[in-house]
Amino acid sequence: MNKLIVEALTKDAFSPFGEVIELDGARGMLVNAGTALSFRDLARVDVGDEGGRTSINFLRASPQAMPLRISALECHPLGSQAFLPLGDLPFMIVVAAPGPFDQKTLRAFVTRGRQGVNYRKGVWHHALICLGAGSEFIVIDRAGEGLNFTEVTLDQSLLVEHSGTP
Amino acid sequence: MNKLIVEALTKDAFSPFGEVIELDGARGMLVNAGTALSFRDLARVDVGDEGGRTSINFLRASPQAMPLRISALECHPLGSQAFLPLGDLPFMIVVAAPGPFDQKTLRAFVTRGRQGVNYRKGVWHHALICLGAGSEFIVIDRAGEGLNFTEVTLDQSLLVEHSGTP
Repeated sequence: MNKLIVEALTKDAFSPFGEVIELDGARGMLVNAGTALSFRDLARVDVGDEGGRTSINFLRASPQAMPLRISALECHPLGSQAFLPLGDLPFMIVVAAPGPFDQKTLRAFVTRGRQGVNYRKGVWHHALICLGAGSEFIVIDRAGEGLNFTEVTLDQSLLVEHSGTP
Repeated sequence: MNKLIVEALTKDAFSPFGEVIELDGARGMLVNAGTALSFRDLARVDVGDEGGRTSINFLRASPQAMPLRISALECHPLGSQAFLPLGDLPFMIVVAAPGPFDQKTLRAFVTRGRQGVNYRKGVWHHALICLGAGSEFIVIDRAGEGLNFTEVTLDQSLLVEHSGTP
């Protein structure tokens, strides 16, 4: 069974798939008479133009046993999907390029500190993989009419393992 | 100087102004092969229909000294604005009915546990009031062309004070 190398999650490495949501490198602005620091527009929400609307959701995910066997991925062809962790526990992300599924484009990432991700519309991804402890996320995605879920089964399963440092 | 009574934040009490975002009473659904619990559509994001788009933002707010003097409110006439706390520290919300500002419609609320709020489009509100410790929030609102900020000064300042239990 093939093994997928786990990379550190950085904006550059993740750019083919969407955005890393993080404050490192973001520019804060003082607001509310100087009592608050605001970081705006951390990700591009895309709900398409066919009756989509933005949905605010909450997800509580259980930890996954490692190594994990990856045998299927999903995608949302009508909109983006952002995962914003409420804490700073690491989690893993497995993605593949949008369009006709190509197993050669598969990549795995692990977060460090408080990092979230925003999958661009149509990006193939595995369900979030929490490590060690469960985690809670705010999820921002598309709701509305239309089929916004597709699944693909891998020809050959893959193993991913979190070794502590990517 | 008049004093504003601080009420407990509940869905019913807050309904003239928007939605309370909380899991109490929300219906979770098992997803991701049973490894995660998902609560969908916790608030209605409204970005209008004139070139608005959803913006994902982050806010780090300092604590405010009590009692606090309220002398101005703001509103966003083009879209809703949701505040989702990353923790469960209480914070205060001061709001007034949308439309021409009417000081008689002013209400103050304090959160309990992990509660967020979504201001409906055009609802007058004070900047978030954090208590004791600062808090961090994910803010979901509207970005795009158009003036989405109006401010009003109160004829007479008001005092709000958090007494520990609303």
